[in-house]
Amino acid sequence: MDYYNTLLQDVKRVEIIISSFHIQEAIKILDQVQVSGYTIIEDTSGKGDRGLSCSDVDCVFSGQYILTVCTNDRQLNTLVENLKPLLKKVGGVCLVADAKWVSH
Amino acid sequence: MDYYNTLLQDVKRVEIIISSFHIQEAIKILDQVQVSGYTIIEDTSGKGDRGLSCSDVDCVFSGQYILTVCTNDRQLNTLVENLKPLLKKVGGVCLVADAKWVSH
Amino acid sequence: MDYYNTLLQDVKRVEIIISSFHIQEAIKILDQVQVSGYTIIEDTSGKGDRGLSCSDVDCVFSGQYILTVCTNDRQLNTLVENLKPLLKKVGGVCLVADAKWVSH
Repeated sequence: MDYYNTLLQDVKRVEIIISSFHIQEAIKILDQVQVSGYTIIEDTSGKGDRGLSCSDVDCVFSGQYILTVCTNDRQLNTLVENLKPLLKKVGGVCLVADAKWVSH
Repeated sequence: MDYYNTLLQDVKRVEIIISSFHIQEAIKILDQVQVSGYTIIEDTSGKGDRGLSCSDVDCVFSGQYILTVCTNDRQLNTLVENLKPLLKKVGGVCLVADAKWVSH
Repeated sequence: MDYYNTLLQDVKRVEIIISSFHIQEAIKILDQVQVSGYTIIEDTSGKGDRGLSCSDVDCVFSGQYILTVCTNDRQLNTLVENLKPLLKKVGGVCLVADAKWVSH
């Protein structure tokens, strides 16, 4: 075990990419599950089929990127459950990965 | 096993940082391996030696950031194989990591 | 073992989100531990409590996002040790995760 592990806390890193038109709905869900914060990168571009980011196949989209962290499984489960219907309706992506967080 | 695992699909998260001059070549490779979509963040800045992002040691660069997802190993292998010569030629970074994708 | 593993090197992906006012202090630390490079995305926005990104509870902030890579544990340990007091003082986030790097 490395020394840095004693400085770090296991978390789930969650990133959401969603159309600019629906960013407020995504943020509302983040607020509901009480993530401790989030970072938004505006004006991303890209290309996707319905499964990834758009309503039309091969459409070009303008979206926003949201990065947040869940500190326990219950919070993550609720976030994913609440986001899934929104993504199903309007398109978009949510990726979840293990990470460690420098607590301070 | 947490409930959210039943909502999620294992994928490989792939991020590419490359000079703005060569973004189209990178996108062409993404199209060739038929990723289902990608997100681009423009106008990133940074600093890198040849190994990370630049042609010169300690150069400052203007680049673009691409985020995409591979849903199987064959797709990822082909993406990495095709990207490697481009990165070797023009500099840039490609990072691959395990992630889970909220399928919808 | 997949073919692509032979093209990839294990690294630690490190991302830092910090107030624009303190970006130079973070970069100085990256230079001290001699990361081979970094990418900066400017003008992110967000919301955080003290623990995540801000000095006040529920404040809105303007920050910058830094992505870098550590290629060995000693480098990562030193980075985290040096960053922690800065984050403690000014707020901000540092996330660490396993990744693979397409070496070239």
